[in-house]
Amino acid sequence: MLSEIISTAREYEQRLPRLSYPQEFVPPLASYLDCALHSPDSTPAMVQKLCEEAVAHQYASVFVNPIYVTHARHYIGSSGVHVGTVAGFPLGGFPTQAKLAETKIYLDMGADEIDMVIPVGMLKSGEYQYVLDEIQQMGEVVHEKGGLLKVILEMVLLTRFEKIIGCLISKYAGADFVKTSTGFSTGGATVEDVELMRRVVGPSNVMGVKAAGGIHTLDDVMRMINAGANRLGTRLAKDVLKEYQQSQSSG
Amino acid sequence: MLSEIISTAREYEQRLPRLSYPQEFVPPLASYLDCALHSPDSTPAMVQKLCEEAVAHQYASVFVNPIYVTHARHYIGSSGVHVGTVAGFPLGGFPTQAKLAETKIYLDMGADEIDMVIPVGMLKSGEYQYVLDEIQQMGEVVHEKGGLLKVILEMVLLTRFEKIIGCLISKYAGADFVKTSTGFSTGGATVEDVELMRRVVGPSNVMGVKAAGGIHTLDDVMRMINAGANRLGTRLAKDVLKEYQQSQSSG
Repeated sequence: MLSEIISTAREYEQRLPRLSYPQEFVPPLASYLDCALHSPDSTPAMVQKLCEEAVAHQYASVFVNPIYVTHARHYIGSSGVHVGTVAGFPLGGFPTQAKLAETKIYLDMGADEIDMVIPVGMLKSGEYQYVLDEIQQMGEVVHEKGGLLKVILEMVLLTRFEKIIGCLISKYAGADFVKTSTGFSTGGATVEDVELMRRVVGPSNVMGVKAAGGIHTLDDVMRMINAGANRLGTRLAKDVLKEYQQSQSSG
Repeated sequence: MLSEIISTAREYEQRLPRLSYPQEFVPPLASYLDCALHSPDSTPAMVQKLCEEAVAHQYASVFVNPIYVTHARHYIGSSGVHVGTVAGFPLGGFPTQAKLAETKIYLDMGADEIDMVIPVGMLKSGEYQYVLDEIQQMGEVVHEKGGLLKVILEMVLLTRFEKIIGCLISKYAGADFVKTSTGFSTGGATVEDVELMRRVVGPSNVMGVKAAGGIHTLDDVMRMINAGANRLGTRLAKDVLKEYQQSQSSG
């Protein structure tokens, strides 16, 4: 599998596949939004507030630090909003065994979406088999519980080739989404990166693309959707949605 | 135990204990230094280089991301330099069970120093028993293997009372060190924080104080030692040591 991934990555490095379909936005906007709260000093009270907001607006999901998954599951209940958390976050540098161990705990606590960070340094060292094996094992654990696995590549730290092969490895390993950024590195989502990811992984019914990091306004969100994102991570989901509703009522 | 901690914290908030002993620097300087490499894109090759440097200069320890503990142990061998890594890092927001699970893995990989991040939001919410229980359980796991446990309070996010009670909880829970910062938040070690920590936890034969975050020069290091630190985390240990050797030969 790895030799096929590497040769495809080399081919795509020369020329990316075209987008053979339009990137269409299908309302409601809220269904695109993962509202996220990852600050280290976030409290149970802040998690409660965010979950109530997520249920009221029917976001795709609420993302909290792992310690608060049980809290979030309690407040989200059976409203249909997903409860997400992060693994190996935000530095990515956990051994696979540790990422698997924490992920099992979070799934048992009630998480149904896991956004994992790849071991960036291993990808940069050409240890593609290691990265592939890790994502495959994570996918097995998450899918066994009916959850979704998103793979954060931390694009700002990668070369163009590393971006392409990171997307291909994630796709071949069976992840559900590739995601641009943790929001804790030197840069967040860019239109260029989102378009590259979409062109590499194919249409959104095959694999998701999540843009995150620095997404604060409706304009940010719509530019990312137009570039190919079908999920957006932001701590300002409420503001974005308000801006959207105002634009609709005035339009 | 908790009521005693809270009443002591209130007392110390009014007036900190005096330092009844001089903060003396006892060479060699290298024995104060934890050289650290936590960037997400650090590679096995960078870890090897850092370990060779640590052995050559006899730093107290080398700190790497968990994925590289096995590598570091291999390169450090039986040179006497410790191999450190981090738990719940850098956001702190893992459930206790996940911090314990990852820590057991890292100890088995060969780590003998663990720098854990407290659940900052739980401390800020007054969940002192939770924080105390977590540090106690971490201490048991680490000490059983003969390791050292340092507790990162992320001082920049705390009020004065939270700083004091965080130190007291760490001390009563049996940790070996309190540590100022992860280096990934909005600020690093300050002289004021290090002095507060030293005054709260008592002399360095009782408990260690580690300053980390923004320590880049010999001047930074000596100011922290004078304020009460007996361990310094820095990614620039080599530069600091060079500066020190130059100051000695010209002095």
